[in-house]
Amino acid sequence: MTDLPILTWSRPSERAANALRAVEIRRGFTRYAEGSVLVTFGNTQVICTASIEEKVPPFLKGKGEGWVTAEYGMLPRATHTRGSREAAKGKQTGRTQEIQRLIGRSVRAVFDMKKLGERTLHLDCDVIQADGGTRCASITGSFVAAQDAVNVLIAQGLLTESPIIDHVAAVSVGMYKGEPVLDLDYDEDSQCETDMNVVMTGSGDFVEVQGTAEGAPFTRSDMNALLDLAQAGIAEIVTLQRQALAAAKPAA
Amino acid sequence: MTDLPILTWSRPSERAANALRAVEIRRGFTRYAEGSVLVTFGNTQVICTASIEEKVPPFLKGKGEGWVTAEYGMLPRATHTRGSREAAKGKQTGRTQEIQRLIGRSVRAVFDMKKLGERTLHLDCDVIQADGGTRCASITGSFVAAQDAVNVLIAQGLLTESPIIDHVAAVSVGMYKGEPVLDLDYDEDSQCETDMNVVMTGSGDFVEVQGTAEGAPFTRSDMNALLDLAQAGIAEIVTLQRQALAAAKPAA
Amino acid sequence: MTDLPILTWSRPSERAANALRAVEIRRGFTRYAEGSVLVTFGNTQVICTASIEEKVPPFLKGKGEGWVTAEYGMLPRATHTRGSREAAKGKQTGRTQEIQRLIGRSVRAVFDMKKLGERTLHLDCDVIQADGGTRCASITGSFVAAQDAVNVLIAQGLLTESPIIDHVAAVSVGMYKGEPVLDLDYDEDSQCETDMNVVMTGSGDFVEVQGTAEGAPFTRSDMNALLDLAQAGIAEIVTLQRQALAAAKPAA
Amino acid sequence: MTDLPILTWSRPSERAANALRAVEIRRGFTRYAEGSVLVTFGNTQVICTASIEEKVPPFLKGKGEGWVTAEYGMLPRATHTRGSREAAKGKQTGRTQEIQRLIGRSVRAVFDMKKLGERTLHLDCDVIQADGGTRCASITGSFVAAQDAVNVLIAQGLLTESPIIDHVAAVSVGMYKGEPVLDLDYDEDSQCETDMNVVMTGSGDFVEVQGTAEGAPFTRSDMNALLDLAQAGIAEIVTLQRQALAAAKPAA
Amino acid sequence: MTDLPILTWSRPSERAANALRAVEIRRGFTRYAEGSVLVTFGNTQVICTASIEEKVPPFLKGKGEGWVTAEYGMLPRATHTRGSREAAKGKQTGRTQEIQRLIGRSVRAVFDMKKLGERTLHLDCDVIQADGGTRCASITGSFVAAQDAVNVLIAQGLLTESPIIDHVAAVSVGMYKGEPVLDLDYDEDSQCETDMNVVMTGSGDFVEVQGTAEGAPFTRSDMNALLDLAQAGIAEIVTLQRQALAAAKPAA
Amino acid sequence: MTDLPILTWSRPSERAANALRAVEIRRGFTRYAEGSVLVTFGNTQVICTASIEEKVPPFLKGKGEGWVTAEYGMLPRATHTRGSREAAKGKQTGRTQEIQRLIGRSVRAVFDMKKLGERTLHLDCDVIQADGGTRCASITGSFVAAQDAVNVLIAQGLLTESPIIDHVAAVSVGMYKGEPVLDLDYDEDSQCETDMNVVMTGSGDFVEVQGTAEGAPFTRSDMNALLDLAQAGIAEIVTLQRQALAAAKPAA
Repeated sequence: MTDLPILTWSRPSERAANALRAVEIRRGFTRYAEGSVLVTFGNTQVICTASIEEKVPPFLKGKGEGWVTAEYGMLPRATHTRGSREAAKGKQTGRTQEIQRLIGRSVRAVFDMKKLGERTLHLDCDVIQADGGTRCASITGSFVAAQDAVNVLIAQGLLTESPIIDHVAAVSVGMYKGEPVLDLDYDEDSQCETDMNVVMTGSGDFVEVQGTAEGAPFTRSDMNALLDLAQAGIAEIVTLQRQALAAAKPAA
Repeated sequence: MTDLPILTWSRPSERAANALRAVEIRRGFTRYAEGSVLVTFGNTQVICTASIEEKVPPFLKGKGEGWVTAEYGMLPRATHTRGSREAAKGKQTGRTQEIQRLIGRSVRAVFDMKKLGERTLHLDCDVIQADGGTRCASITGSFVAAQDAVNVLIAQGLLTESPIIDHVAAVSVGMYKGEPVLDLDYDEDSQCETDMNVVMTGSGDFVEVQGTAEGAPFTRSDMNALLDLAQAGIAEIVTLQRQALAAAKPAA
Repeated sequence: MTDLPILTWSRPSERAANALRAVEIRRGFTRYAEGSVLVTFGNTQVICTASIEEKVPPFLKGKGEGWVTAEYGMLPRATHTRGSREAAKGKQTGRTQEIQRLIGRSVRAVFDMKKLGERTLHLDCDVIQADGGTRCASITGSFVAAQDAVNVLIAQGLLTESPIIDHVAAVSVGMYKGEPVLDLDYDEDSQCETDMNVVMTGSGDFVEVQGTAEGAPFTRSDMNALLDLAQAGIAEIVTLQRQALAAAKPAA
Repeated sequence: MTDLPILTWSRPSERAANALRAVEIRRGFTRYAEGSVLVTFGNTQVICTASIEEKVPPFLKGKGEGWVTAEYGMLPRATHTRGSREAAKGKQTGRTQEIQRLIGRSVRAVFDMKKLGERTLHLDCDVIQADGGTRCASITGSFVAAQDAVNVLIAQGLLTESPIIDHVAAVSVGMYKGEPVLDLDYDEDSQCETDMNVVMTGSGDFVEVQGTAEGAPFTRSDMNALLDLAQAGIAEIVTLQRQALAAAKPAA
Repeated sequence: MTDLPILTWSRPSERAANALRAVEIRRGFTRYAEGSVLVTFGNTQVICTASIEEKVPPFLKGKGEGWVTAEYGMLPRATHTRGSREAAKGKQTGRTQEIQRLIGRSVRAVFDMKKLGERTLHLDCDVIQADGGTRCASITGSFVAAQDAVNVLIAQGLLTESPIIDHVAAVSVGMYKGEPVLDLDYDEDSQCETDMNVVMTGSGDFVEVQGTAEGAPFTRSDMNALLDLAQAGIAEIVTLQRQALAAAKPAA
Repeated sequence: MTDLPILTWSRPSERAANALRAVEIRRGFTRYAEGSVLVTFGNTQVICTASIEEKVPPFLKGKGEGWVTAEYGMLPRATHTRGSREAAKGKQTGRTQEIQRLIGRSVRAVFDMKKLGERTLHLDCDVIQADGGTRCASITGSFVAAQDAVNVLIAQGLLTESPIIDHVAAVSVGMYKGEPVLDLDYDEDSQCETDMNVVMTGSGDFVEVQGTAEGAPFTRSDMNALLDLAQAGIAEIVTLQRQALAAAKPAA
């Protein structure tokens, strides 16, 4: 593993290059969804719910398999300046669609669809406060909400075996002022040269890697350093997921 | 005032006919909006933010007056069964538009637009948990968020005098099993004969009365009894608004 | 009943405070609809048609009940200045949706859906000239069109008993220059302090009351005076409905 | 001119092959538009209004020329069975767009845009009863409404000279049961082999010819016979336009 | 037939008044569609594909008949200046809808729908370079693509007999500088007085005639001269279609 | 560099694991765009045009910087079975938006926006035949079209210095039957376990890496092998870009 460089500057948040923000996973945040989680990565807060629907999309009908799909939204004033409401404008932005497709793919990667059976798990990720990393927080929280929803199915006798194969969690990494850093907040994200979102399983394999040079292109060795940081960060987050799930689910 | 009937049946919530649910008004719920309130009426929870924009809609340009407008939304899984996401469907329902128009009109009723000056106050009401009465909770919480946003303008020296003339708050009343009751929850709302939303000022005058016979038409004396209940309920809610505003605004 | 105040000023139309405009209900206005009425309240003119469709919306399928629904529109040049065409803009305004929901609810209030059977009555209200009170005229005319459509079903042997329980009609009232007045035209409507639309049955009970303070909030005693005016006005309108329906239906 | 064939069958309407339906042009039908005409071709009835707007579309700004544009709509129950409302569906059909483009082009053909000056004439054609030939009735009625609107501009001193160069009117012709007939009603239109809409000036020249073989293709000699019929029919219609315009404009 | 006038001026393209541009019909242009043609009329280039779908639209279900339908599009930079992308704007223009309806009607005119059986032929015409006459090129190319798709159905044994009754092709004619000319390119089209699109069968009958006076109205004798030109031009084009179809279909 | 495994199976295309498909870059494909390229990767064919617009989006106005943006589309029958036309459905899919955002970001990465000046380069990528890798082909072809457009600006004297800093090109790699392979065609793409799109500069740095586990998650060593393959493949493609640009631009 690449040695972590000694930063000659401070991150805006004063964190070490390999330090996550405070990550909290609060289960049972709202009362009607089968799974409902408030996930926070520092000042980023996302409500993730998992809802069970006893049918599948048309392309899966009759195949004996289930489906997991996600939608993402942001309250207009989750951000520093108010953004327009997508429902009022009548369409989701390209960014929204890209993120919700990513969340869906990420959680599907740890589901055995045969074991889920012909039902759909709807994940809804709604950002109530945004300070960078909303898509990674969404994936991390959605997994926990999905686990709670699966537990409901098992408790109701609708499933005898869990369709969940592994944990899945995500974190952002990036090149900021020329150095690799973990879990960028908005201040860093808006100024970094490279922004990379990494989604991994509990076993430490990759589900998705999306790296983008916002400024200067990045080298192969930057890439390696960023993946090292992400691997370690996600391992910490998976531990937090396990701890959250180990407790009894609180009432909303 | 009409005497409150002695109910021969229990309300599903076991409340007295003239009892509000637990109403809480939590200021500073999120950190970026000038005003941000989590309002709860029992299990109904709405995030109300107030955002200041230093311009007005085209029809007011150059008139020296401000504007207050509202948007309303519901997270897909705020309800018992998941509803579809308006942003994904590409349009707001008629119900959503009706509610956000009502919220805007209600809060405008207590603003002196000349004193607000050429700026817009955007109210965003997003329901995270819905158990009846979301529009009334939204109006009640929006007023408090609006007050906090006005306080920011005053603190910044952008206003020397408050444009807010009076409090405004709202509650629902209805004929349920033939008797008038206050502050209907979802169980009552979905079965009542008449549903009425009442919006009043702190001084006790009416801003809006919207009564609808869902089942049997209602009589003039039902009307009187419902207005009596609403007047008393709103007086209690205004007291809670005053208490919430009397405290220092907490950090998000 | 509250005494009607002696106005110290004239209404723009020179009417007494409790005087309706000339209300006319012309049946058989167009030839293809099962019910087709041109209703006029002074210079306000609305074509109301009732169309029978032998199926119900999905949520009612197989329940043995019918449905009544309404759509509302305004010709672009129904008004003093040309408004944009909703079909061309690709969406209905919030105002349009609010009105058509009100019309549908109002007429449904006097229908026994079991007796209607699994069919839908579509009410279309298209304003060809607008001088205030278009939603009240629409409700008033739609009831008559609905009655004619029901008569067609009875004449065809598709119904043996009418599903219509009572008349329904509507009128606007408002506080204008501080006094309650009946049936506001556009000049009054655009300047009144409070605007209230009242929908009542032939028996004199309320189906809907929607009062809005456009300017100063209104008091409980204003409310009472407005409801008195509305009750009397609607009684007159119901008489006109009865007279219109007593005649043979003219050919279009 | 081709001799008119002796029909060995009756038209559904019992008209002669070269007979128009009763054509009526009622000016001043509604009161707010600068020009407002109810035009009837038999059972087809269209409200045509002409509205003046003192600005031009962006592509004409600053060129010293005016513009004439048209929109077309049909009330949902103008037809034998109810059609869906375009505003509710959120888009105009291809048919609607095709027709309104045709109306606009046709009336523009008789306007001198320099003389109109930088203003727009909006033509709105709304079909309240449809029995075939609605686009031809719309063109015919729009011309008269446009003339009334121009007269308003002249009366107000905004124009000193009319921008109108000639009359324009339209009629449909078609091959029905193998023979050319004039002014098809819905029964004929839905069964004809060829349907042709012809738009001509008062001087007898062509503005638009749109012929479509719905069934068998048509020959060059069919074409000639159809154009003969249309020329004669339009000459009659132009005479009716002149008569309608010769009278004083009635109050709405 | 009218004598062709001796032009006292040159056409921008230096062609004779009755000369087509170079027309090429390249079959097998792309590899997946059942029929795929690149048609060129001078600098106008359109990809026409014909796709078979083994079902029909709802209005034809169970009637034992097939359907032919067309869609039309233009790449944003097919033209001299970039046009906006209809998919990005979220709607097709009126012009696009008008053209695709015309293409569909034209090709349907030479199909026996009973013989096609319950399947749909989708024609897609996408303009990659536009220099006038794109709708005529689209009809001409679509017919050839449709023929290739029908040949696939016959080769697969799904049809034993061709549903194609005749050829169909199209050309534009127009009055340019007062004289009738054949096959207008963009330079001529944008300046002509009359523009006419003519669609004819291989047997020389008319399927569609759409003539529009863009400038001065046209006379009956102009009309005759234009139809003469079109008839001769289409005969040439049909010959080119036959030659293209006589060759073996090349691989894409 | 990781040694390339000896495959014990054949790729469907019989290519070696590190072999590109035939890549061709045809400049001057259509005549009106400032840059127009037909790029082919095997059976994948994309028309890429670059259009210059002498203005920038609102957020850049007055900043002295240019912009590069991209739109992407696919002809309905570019694929094995016909897809629906986005313009007809009235919205672009999430996939389309994701791809066009990627193309824009990729080409922006090699532009110096200050040197481009206040103008926009619009890239349009329209897939006429799709056999996997359309986004990579689009980026590769767009770069060449962009270079041709910049050359036009230089030739016209509008730029004195090129804003292009480096080449940019893209290729897909993936884990197919457990082994890393280069440049997946549709057969491989639809069955691979991991699909990764890599965008690199001519200097060999990364602009974007998007890897997705469609089946089993991928390991860190899979990642390394895939990046090795991509680096080598992109180097070959950049050479082909250079060769294409070295020739004189052919006439369309």
